[in-house]
Amino acid sequence: MTFRDDGAAALEWAARYLETVGDYPVLAQVEPGEIRSRLPASAPEMGEPFADVLRDVDEILLPGITHWQSPRFFAYFATSASEPGILAELLAATLNSVAFLWRTSPASTELEAVTLDWTAQLLGLPSGWHGHIEDTASTSTLAALAAAREVTGRNVVVCSEHAHSSVDKAARLLGLELRKVPADPEFRLRADELDLTDAAAVVATVGTTSTASVDPVPAIADACAAAGAWRHVDAAYAGSAWVCPELRWSQAGVERADSLVVNAHKWLFTPMDCSLLWSSRPDDLRRAFSLVPEYLQTSDDVDSLSEYGPALGRRFRSLKLWAVLRCYGRAGLQARIREAVRLAELFEGWVRDDPDWEVCAPRHFSLVCFRRNGPDAANEAIVERVNRSGELFLSHTRLDGRYVLRLALGNERTTEDDVRRAWAALKEV
Amino acid sequence: MTFRDDGAAALEWAARYLETVGDYPVLAQVEPGEIRSRLPASAPEMGEPFADVLRDVDEILLPGITHWQSPRFFAYFATSASEPGILAELLAATLNSVAFLWRTSPASTELEAVTLDWTAQLLGLPSGWHGHIEDTASTSTLAALAAAREVTGRNVVVCSEHAHSSVDKAARLLGLELRKVPADPEFRLRADELDLTDAAAVVATVGTTSTASVDPVPAIADACAAAGAWRHVDAAYAGSAWVCPELRWSQAGVERADSLVVNAHKWLFTPMDCSLLWSSRPDDLRRAFSLVPEYLQTSDDVDSLSEYGPALGRRFRSLKLWAVLRCYGRAGLQARIREAVRLAELFEGWVRDDPDWEVCAPRHFSLVCFRRNGPDAANEAIVERVNRSGELFLSHTRLDGRYVLRLALGNERTTEDDVRRAWAALKEV
Repeated sequence: MTFRDDGAAALEWAARYLETVGDYPVLAQVEPGEIRSRLPASAPEMGEPFADVLRDVDEILLPGITHWQSPRFFAYFATSASEPGILAELLAATLNSVAFLWRTSPASTELEAVTLDWTAQLLGLPSGWHGHIEDTASTSTLAALAAAREVTGRNVVVCSEHAHSSVDKAARLLGLELRKVPADPEFRLRADELDLTDAAAVVATVGTTSTASVDPVPAIADACAAAGAWRHVDAAYAGSAWVCPELRWSQAGVERADSLVVNAHKWLFTPMDCSLLWSSRPDDLRRAFSLVPEYLQTSDDVDSLSEYGPALGRRFRSLKLWAVLRCYGRAGLQARIREAVRLAELFEGWVRDDPDWEVCAPRHFSLVCFRRNGPDAANEAIVERVNRSGELFLSHTRLDGRYVLRLALGNERTTEDDVRRAWAALKEV
Repeated sequence: MTFRDDGAAALEWAARYLETVGDYPVLAQVEPGEIRSRLPASAPEMGEPFADVLRDVDEILLPGITHWQSPRFFAYFATSASEPGILAELLAATLNSVAFLWRTSPASTELEAVTLDWTAQLLGLPSGWHGHIEDTASTSTLAALAAAREVTGRNVVVCSEHAHSSVDKAARLLGLELRKVPADPEFRLRADELDLTDAAAVVATVGTTSTASVDPVPAIADACAAAGAWRHVDAAYAGSAWVCPELRWSQAGVERADSLVVNAHKWLFTPMDCSLLWSSRPDDLRRAFSLVPEYLQTSDDVDSLSEYGPALGRRFRSLKLWAVLRCYGRAGLQARIREAVRLAELFEGWVRDDPDWEVCAPRHFSLVCFRRNGPDAANEAIVERVNRSGELFLSHTRLDGRYVLRLALGNERTTEDDVRRAWAALKEV
């Protein structure tokens, strides 16, 4: 078989998968160890045809796949790997560029700068910020906090109790003390509780993981300015919403950030992984990371993006973001974001109108937090049962000590009918 | 256009690229800013066809691509994204699994364990080690050193002066002091110079970046055992060679490592990014990273691989490694590794036999370090000229103060004729 034949089979597999992904149980219905037990204990001695690999993807792996591409994946933050993004990954893997220096892939380095500028414009960010791509928000936040530590020489990071666990992880790696500030009744950092003594940085969240709440970034920025602390904004999920002007209320104060993370692989229709990190102080970011050993020295008078983050090797990640921005355009992105928000509003309305159920947090963007009246155990059982049914997949959080369900919209394939099916399934169990 | 049509065009582009990659200038022949200047300043308002993206890949980006897939890419460490690996990336992007918990992609989590076990067997590593995939060796080494810091409570990392800059970067991120030990005349860490006072870890390198030299791992392991320091082995490039029993002389002592990194994207025919990290002390690795907030708690009694490293989000990277191991088999991997070593030996012989040239370091694996008799400036000019010619791409290092050329074999498409062309071009300039 040739690459063309194998490739045609792989492509047909992908096309069929995307057409039928809504038919699979959303959450994989397997027990731990089940997939592993079906795989041989060792690699083969002689090579096998790619067709055998493709067959085993279907027969062995597929039952162990939780379908992130399903229109009824409502857990965590719903995502989509769009078709242009998927095909761009094929191209990136074919080129296999590794852009640790400008010269090792000028097109990758420069397209990364261009797509980050394009995205900054789409989101209405200040012009002139330096942008690059990291794998995940964990790494982006790690990079930002490393810069903050370098610049301030201080050892404390401050964030809300609702900040993402990646802040905890980054602080632990960097050896920083993490100080968590209580949230107000709407799950926003209480700026009046900020204690910035010795603070290297504050992480403000726009769109927290539990409820998509929005921290008071302007007040936080004021406090940071007074204390000389770095302002990092984690808008990993909600930042993509800024492509719609009507959702930019949540951007207030972000223009004063020292660094900002938005994950294109969350709500910008780009396949994993594509975490966008901008900084208004790129020289400080670079100072925290730049290391140029002899074997990487060149006569090129140009920055390398590996000098702005922890990893040296860099995939050609901007290609997929570029493909999405080109093929969807501003209008296409806005339409998809707005549809997700509309579906969330719709679902929120159904919950509100049903006396057996309760909305548990202000609904922002495309996330609804809710629960059925009654004990936590009953709500846990609902989640467990609907997830086990395969009809939909949703996740939970805990708010004010109570177990709360989360329904996250964001998959571009999700229709109103899918949301109706989810609501029906939740009420039925 | 549909996904099938766009996909067929993308696939045809990829097939043609792989067939003709040897015809392009290996190093991109553009000036800084040139690619950027050909791209629009903003994203389009309305979506465009994918065909336009594909056209612009050819017309705008391709001149700015340094062709890592070219058979005459001899810089850094030569790599290949093999055809099965490329197609597996298409599948992974289509599935878009994010395996931060077992349940969010059981198949990804379990296939990762299986492929790491398969690879450990292929390389002859001790059984029972825990393996997982990080993006790059920078991250793998960061993870290992974080565990070392956690376990020992100490603040010093020790490595040879020839260790990779990722050790410097990891130490800086973790706030560890880095102590560099001098190398012997063959560029190996001098174990008699080891001072392990307060040492959290020693990083031993098997296959250094400059010369592919092999540190004395058994002596280092002894010293670490006596001092209670963590033993991390960086075999990012050379570890893949262990698939061939005749190259396992370089594995002595590695069986006593606490952690080991081998980059499958370097010499195991897997597209970027796929850095394999094994540990014989996984509980310690986990202790350094595990953080399970409420919104990630499940009833599944099973580890999540995100608890073993810095990032939470995890792509389905094992799929491409699995495809390569299946389609090449042990025999296919051995044949490719052996051919690269044979070509390196051949080139080394030509250099040795030519009185105008000199081999500058013992040749290990598939890397030859050499220079033309005469001043550094003349050698720099040779590198600059052959790279500018587009005929081949090679990089340099500095050994004992002298500027030295490096010819790295490893691309599976490289033939003896390609190496002859490289030698002819080097002699000609």
